[in-house]
Amino acid sequence: MNRGTTDFNSFVSRTHTCGELRSTHVGQEVTLCGWLQYERQGLFVVLRDFHGLTQIVIPQDESSSYLKKLLTAAPLESVVQVSGTVIARPEGQANSKMPTGDIEVQLTGAEILNSCKKLPFEIKDFAKKTESLRMQYRYLDLRSQQLQHNLRLRSQMVMRMREYLCNLHGFVDVETPTLFKRTPGGAKEFLVPTREPGKFYSLPQSPQQFKQLLMVGGLDRYFQVARCYRDEGSRPNRQPEFTQVDIEMSFVDQAGIQRLIEGLLQYSWPEEKEALTPPFPSMTYAEAMATYGTDKPDTRFGMKIVDITDFFRMSEAEFMQRALKQPDSTVKAICISEGAKYLKGKDLETLGQLAKSECNQDVSWLILRPDGSWKARLAKLWTEEQKAQLSQLTGAKAGDVLLVAAGEHEATCSVLGKLRLECATFLESRGIVLRDPSLFHFLWVVDFPLFLPKEDQTDWLESAHHPFTAPHPSDCVFLYSDPRKVRGQHYDLVLNGSEIGGGSIRIHNSELQRHVLENILKEDVSLLTHLLEALESGAPPHGGIALGLDRLVSLIVGASSIRDVIAFPKSFRGRDLMSNAPDIVSAEDLKPQLERAQNKSDELIIWRGARTASSD
Amino acid sequence: MNRGTTDFNSFVSRTHTCGELRSTHVGQEVTLCGWLQYERQGLFVVLRDFHGLTQIVIPQDESSSYLKKLLTAAPLESVVQVSGTVIARPEGQANSKMPTGDIEVQLTGAEILNSCKKLPFEIKDFAKKTESLRMQYRYLDLRSQQLQHNLRLRSQMVMRMREYLCNLHGFVDVETPTLFKRTPGGAKEFLVPTREPGKFYSLPQSPQQFKQLLMVGGLDRYFQVARCYRDEGSRPNRQPEFTQVDIEMSFVDQAGIQRLIEGLLQYSWPEEKEALTPPFPSMTYAEAMATYGTDKPDTRFGMKIVDITDFFRMSEAEFMQRALKQPDSTVKAICISEGAKYLKGKDLETLGQLAKSECNQDVSWLILRPDGSWKARLAKLWTEEQKAQLSQLTGAKAGDVLLVAAGEHEATCSVLGKLRLECATFLESRGIVLRDPSLFHFLWVVDFPLFLPKEDQTDWLESAHHPFTAPHPSDCVFLYSDPRKVRGQHYDLVLNGSEIGGGSIRIHNSELQRHVLENILKEDVSLLTHLLEALESGAPPHGGIALGLDRLVSLIVGASSIRDVIAFPKSFRGRDLMSNAPDIVSAEDLKPQLERAQNKSDELIIWRGARTASSD
Repeated sequence: MNRGTTDFNSFVSRTHTCGELRSTHVGQEVTLCGWLQYERQGLFVVLRDFHGLTQIVIPQDESSSYLKKLLTAAPLESVVQVSGTVIARPEGQANSKMPTGDIEVQLTGAEILNSCKKLPFEIKDFAKKTESLRMQYRYLDLRSQQLQHNLRLRSQMVMRMREYLCNLHGFVDVETPTLFKRTPGGAKEFLVPTREPGKFYSLPQSPQQFKQLLMVGGLDRYFQVARCYRDEGSRPNRQPEFTQVDIEMSFVDQAGIQRLIEGLLQYSWPEEKEALTPPFPSMTYAEAMATYGTDKPDTRFGMKIVDITDFFRMSEAEFMQRALKQPDSTVKAICISEGAKYLKGKDLETLGQLAKSECNQDVSWLILRPDGSWKARLAKLWTEEQKAQLSQLTGAKAGDVLLVAAGEHEATCSVLGKLRLECATFLESRGIVLRDPSLFHFLWVVDFPLFLPKEDQTDWLESAHHPFTAPHPSDCVFLYSDPRKVRGQHYDLVLNGSEIGGGSIRIHNSELQRHVLENILKEDVSLLTHLLEALESGAPPHGGIALGLDRLVSLIVGASSIRDVIAFPKSFRGRDLMSNAPDIVSAEDLKPQLERAQNKSDELIIWRGARTASSD
Repeated sequence: MNRGTTDFNSFVSRTHTCGELRSTHVGQEVTLCGWLQYERQGLFVVLRDFHGLTQIVIPQDESSSYLKKLLTAAPLESVVQVSGTVIARPEGQANSKMPTGDIEVQLTGAEILNSCKKLPFEIKDFAKKTESLRMQYRYLDLRSQQLQHNLRLRSQMVMRMREYLCNLHGFVDVETPTLFKRTPGGAKEFLVPTREPGKFYSLPQSPQQFKQLLMVGGLDRYFQVARCYRDEGSRPNRQPEFTQVDIEMSFVDQAGIQRLIEGLLQYSWPEEKEALTPPFPSMTYAEAMATYGTDKPDTRFGMKIVDITDFFRMSEAEFMQRALKQPDSTVKAICISEGAKYLKGKDLETLGQLAKSECNQDVSWLILRPDGSWKARLAKLWTEEQKAQLSQLTGAKAGDVLLVAAGEHEATCSVLGKLRLECATFLESRGIVLRDPSLFHFLWVVDFPLFLPKEDQTDWLESAHHPFTAPHPSDCVFLYSDPRKVRGQHYDLVLNGSEIGGGSIRIHNSELQRHVLENILKEDVSLLTHLLEALESGAPPHGGIALGLDRLVSLIVGASSIRDVIAFPKSFRGRDLMSNAPDIVSAEDLKPQLERAQNKSDELIIWRGARTASSD
């Protein structure tokens, strides 16, 4: 990742990093700084820094006994500065696995810069340690090759993104406030009490309003690597603060944003990975749901959902017939290639239970035997022609397993989508590679519905994404008659089954925005007066996107959690295990705030968690 | 500022910006998008975007009457897309003041993209408006040339800084948490209540602990354009959130950091300004105080403080003799060149009152008359030789004014330092340029005292900067005997009299850090256990610096306030006048938090500003 011109040794006393010396350096006097990684019988030590390892040979003559004593007495992980001469390793002792393995440094001087007194675990990649221990001693875990690599790759990738946006395409990096006003429906926003009694800032979930206002302000092209906040309690693989690459452009359409992002990812893609080849494929929301049962399909493998409603309508399978009498009922299947070989009866049962418990759906399975016959309760009712038809419809070959579900379209797709991923996990546990981690399948998902029924009040609508998304031009007419039919100019970017970005063309017409907020979403528009006024003041057409940086980088480096690409992550309970944050604040520290607040006699103003002042 | 390769027209429908067309484009078909800046009698309109202005000629033939109607009916500041042919302006009509003044665009098509309905003030640079109106309609003010320039220059400068740090010198851009734990003495930290009753995150004033822990973690070279927070109520020219360019390096000394920063500023300095020529001059804290009466001297002009204690010891001026009987007493002066001409008696009185009211100090003045005689109550007591000596000591020439103060060294310097700046303001109001805004005088101030007496308890010490600053190597011995004598390895970077950065070499020895915290500062070290443990685990020697980005950019662009280099600043009362933040949060919105909190019966847990749940 490092450019040829990068100087890691500027401004400091070392001459080289511990990963830098090669045969070409033989004969040079060098100074290295690093951590004692290994020491062997007073003969040599291995010094480590962020860049690699170098072997240091300790001369065995009397005059070097002081150096020998110094280095052998120092505990591992002590910080040391050494000077010496680069020499070639003796014949046959070169280590081809080590980038510096052709040389060693013949010691002439050493200084212990800081002695290591305490180590809760070894700084070796193979050392086993729990994640909570790693997080408690994060400053030690950061020395691991993995975290060094992840954080450096992240930094380089963001740098390349900035070059692309700022230098190549004229974007302006603008910092927007994080102390802001509560937004409508912002239940997941952290509140920040201020010195004005009863008044709060709110930490925003995204710079959405600001990026739009910047367009109204004529900034034309905005980006920011933006810190965002979400207070949603314990969620695995979520962080209370996270980072998004936030982008907004004026005078742009959906295709413009998509080409921009494809170029951005191509440009910033790590050099050690195979280059990306845009444009990325695109799929409508409807197609993604029908084919993969999810709006973020992992397209690295098939096992697509097939609609076999018509087949079952003609068949005599009674239970299916019953299901099909429901309005909107469908029958769908996924075909698990070689499923008969890799899935046991117990596995199929587990899948069935999962469908029941998570989606309240029944799922049947059918096995196409090697001899071409079907193993299924209902198969005997079918004619040879029907069986052949089912094989053809689903692409099933001998040895495959079909999972079949019936019911309303979306629900059926959804359960099969979940089972598809579950099957992939089963098959992978048996050695079949379905989701090759070295493959990166990007996919645009487009044409989302603009509104969805509210989960608790299905008569009411809520925005599928956010209330500022513009309707699809050809659906505008339905905004006043049947809003459920309106698609939004929204696009999600999916990578290997994870949503890594989402954006939209925004509403730039103030009346339309007011109609959506007031009449469709029944929101209190008074909180958004400034935005509506801005749209009346010469707002250009505009749109944007935000990429989830933590997720994107974690997928690229193959980390199992976004915590592995964040320097100081919180646990899934939102705790910093190293410093023990959040923490109790002493009554002493809260007092000045309380006293100020109590001057206002008309309000009972007490801090959450603080006892009343009188009980201090 | 824009590089030659920047494409501002990628991904959008326009072919050129409104600032781009020249004679070389004549004959080309172009499409422009922008705001209607000006319209004249149906003959032409001027279109504006972030890049400039272009004149659009409306054809007067019948077939273009629709276009004419469209454009003349549109209110100014409406957003318009026009197509047309670039033509040379008729002979004699070129406008040399306008970069696009050689051409105009002969209109062939136009579309009103958004009509402007409302404007609280004109978008003209000359339009007068109060700052509060500008902040309320910030999205309009952002269209001004000034703010467009400031924000773009800021973005470009930060980009260059990143190139220097990341690409040229191997720094890693690491994002550190802003939801953290309260730090010892963090009275100015905003608190963020969490879902755990009684527990708070704290928004840190800087990433100080994290940057040090990154060094312990072997990151070697860290930087971040970091958002920082400070809750200090109403302060002019301060913001509750601000940005610093935050840097930390391992194995570095003070000179290393200084050379790094000089290189950084030189590399990122705007091209349109005269290039910087490091190294920057350096001055000890003691020298800065003695010569300028401040630790952030504006070295663009002289008027230095001169110690004339010895002169007065020999003179017969009785009041001075009295003052000089106090231990540690001194007499000092500044010489105001041509002061007799530019300062009136009333001005000198104002200066005297200021010294009294702000510093509780008496200040006398002496005028050296053109004829060489002194105008001063005491002058008659002096011999000719003494007068000549005074002139020589202070550099006073005929027509100059001396301001003289007596008292303890630091207090005397301090009052004269204040008067020096006040005099400069007086002289500048009379047309003398002392502080040329086109000059950029950088200055390192070094060798600060490590500790200062606490303001309210002068027996106790507090850190002059922060408790992690390493002592000057030659002063370490005093740490255990007389800490007041210890200088710190701290350095401030001063530009034109403003502190724009500060940093230090840090303590990397855990015992020394503990001694400073426990024995000298009497802090509760339990809040810093993780840091002390980290220093025991192989912490490399390290140091760093932080530059105040808002201040730096505001000095470079000559803005009168940092609010002019921030897209969405808060007022000096910490309010966002556009959205009205901070704001009251409805009891409805606070309720879920209250209910959760009230399950804990042993704590009275109520949000600041919320009424008790029972009063809802």
